[in-house]
Amino acid sequence: MAPKIKDVAKKAGVSVTTVSRVLNGEKYVKDDLKAKVKRVIDELGYAPSHIARSLVRKKTNLIGVIVPDLTSSFYSTILSSIEETASLNDYNLLVCNIIEDTDKELKYLNVFKEMRVDGIIIMHEKLNDEIRNFINKLDTPVIFSSVRPVDHKFVSVIIDDYEAAYDATRYLVDLGHERIAFIGGDMRDITSGQNRYVGYRNALKDQRVPIVNDYIRFGDYKTQSGYNLMKELLACEPRPTALFAVSDDMAVGAMNCIHDHQLKVPDDISIIGFDGSQLTELVRPRLSSMEQPIQDMGKITVNTLIELISDPAFSPREDLILGHKLVVRDSCRSIQ
Amino acid sequence: MAPKIKDVAKKAGVSVTTVSRVLNGEKYVKDDLKAKVKRVIDELGYAPSHIARSLVRKKTNLIGVIVPDLTSSFYSTILSSIEETASLNDYNLLVCNIIEDTDKELKYLNVFKEMRVDGIIIMHEKLNDEIRNFINKLDTPVIFSSVRPVDHKFVSVIIDDYEAAYDATRYLVDLGHERIAFIGGDMRDITSGQNRYVGYRNALKDQRVPIVNDYIRFGDYKTQSGYNLMKELLACEPRPTALFAVSDDMAVGAMNCIHDHQLKVPDDISIIGFDGSQLTELVRPRLSSMEQPIQDMGKITVNTLIELISDPAFSPREDLILGHKLVVRDSCRSIQ
Repeated sequence: MAPKIKDVAKKAGVSVTTVSRVLNGEKYVKDDLKAKVKRVIDELGYAPSHIARSLVRKKTNLIGVIVPDLTSSFYSTILSSIEETASLNDYNLLVCNIIEDTDKELKYLNVFKEMRVDGIIIMHEKLNDEIRNFINKLDTPVIFSSVRPVDHKFVSVIIDDYEAAYDATRYLVDLGHERIAFIGGDMRDITSGQNRYVGYRNALKDQRVPIVNDYIRFGDYKTQSGYNLMKELLACEPRPTALFAVSDDMAVGAMNCIHDHQLKVPDDISIIGFDGSQLTELVRPRLSSMEQPIQDMGKITVNTLIELISDPAFSPREDLILGHKLVVRDSCRSIQ
Repeated sequence: MAPKIKDVAKKAGVSVTTVSRVLNGEKYVKDDLKAKVKRVIDELGYAPSHIARSLVRKKTNLIGVIVPDLTSSFYSTILSSIEETASLNDYNLLVCNIIEDTDKELKYLNVFKEMRVDGIIIMHEKLNDEIRNFINKLDTPVIFSSVRPVDHKFVSVIIDDYEAAYDATRYLVDLGHERIAFIGGDMRDITSGQNRYVGYRNALKDQRVPIVNDYIRFGDYKTQSGYNLMKELLACEPRPTALFAVSDDMAVGAMNCIHDHQLKVPDDISIIGFDGSQLTELVRPRLSSMEQPIQDMGKITVNTLIELISDPAFSPREDLILGHKLVVRDSCRSIQ
């Protein structure tokens, strides 16, 4: 039988009110009484019910997080940073891994609502109407991290994906490449699909490098699609001399495909990835990549959400746009 | 203002009791009334409070999970499988990423207790006395996944780490190697530290292959330690012809070190890893590995925990030991 607050009060020889005051960190309790109550709490192993307390306080200290894919290096790193910052602020995470299953997402959003989470973090942008309606009707603050959905009602913590893709492409042009292939993302995604694609096109156009439709493919951000699409690109005549892939996972898939065809990176084909995930340092040659500040992204997402939670009047109308950074490693070469 | 149960009752023209019965899926409510109540619930956007319901039911449908490191490919894959199985059974996960911080772990265990989680999953084995005492006193079912702590009070879902390490080493011996180096884990860990080490030693002993202390190093399971320790092993005279590393991450670190020293895997040194994580397929040459059934491990962990939750009398005294499997890829060669 779990000890109750009155057991603590009895054993410490104080009133239930005093125990409650100690638990809630209120003033007006003498230090020696405080110490005594705390000692008894430890001895009895008493835990105040979070559930009962939540009912009174109307605050659960829970944050619901929707992750597209826990096994991707990008998302597990950002989740790790979110968890760290949340924990520092005494928030706990309810984690849902949706893997593109919108039914599951809707089910979890309902759970988040039922559980009265204080805030919700969403890390994908493929919202269907049902999900859009649902979150539009919620009282709970919602924030998007690393993506920006079409309707601009919510705050997003992102980089400028257009600029970042533009800069990555420009880097390959500056190295002297004129046959630059592109493996893009899902064109239903604004941030990681459309913006990165337009950045690639405009960088080529501005530098008067021909845009070749045959060099342009679209994948799903994962290694296998990078591998398969690279196979198609290797069959192009003439073969591209460089590739920009909009995720490190796809870039690594492409690298492996090139290796398996007895060709070399960067000797035969230069590759630049996108994200700056751990993978970039794990492969050989090490992968040059357009880096997102993944750690900061997680941290700023949680801190902004906490501001939204504690001050409903606080509403940054603007997205929070963090800086991107080109990190040059060993996968690109100059051909001038 | 969020709608309350009485608002639903009023609008549907029924009693609060009827609404409550519909919500709890009880019988004795006519189908047309049920439909009507459900329609009103949708219209008003009413969500029954999970908190209030938990107080009545004494069940939260929450599982607390302690993960050592979300960014490791092994743990993110097993967590993904745990999440999937939990979700199928209408359990939600509270996730804590401890990164060897025992204070943080203790804090979270307290949160789990306060939140009245229905069960707890722990994925590391370095329990200190404080944590051991805490979980020993808990009423909540606890299960260990992929590890087995020293004291055998709790159920673990694991492979036979000794046998698996023995078989991995034996594979290298069978390929004709006699100078077989070893990069082990933390010797404070029974499962992944000691058992794998003893498996390596005994396989060599049984095959009358000399055990050379200089070929034996201990790391922290991560890529960087594999890299650093391989550097030391490359300086040994004579150089080992093969390596068994007890995590894929360390094996990949070792591979990269060999590559950076202008040597080749498997031509100069054969490598076998341990875990069967996604990394094995992402590197070149692809990494042969002693595979743990990661997906099954997550699934069986959750299913067993749910049995423990629903039937307190159910107590499998035995650990659940799953099969390991040698998966041969391209990182080992025969030197006979």
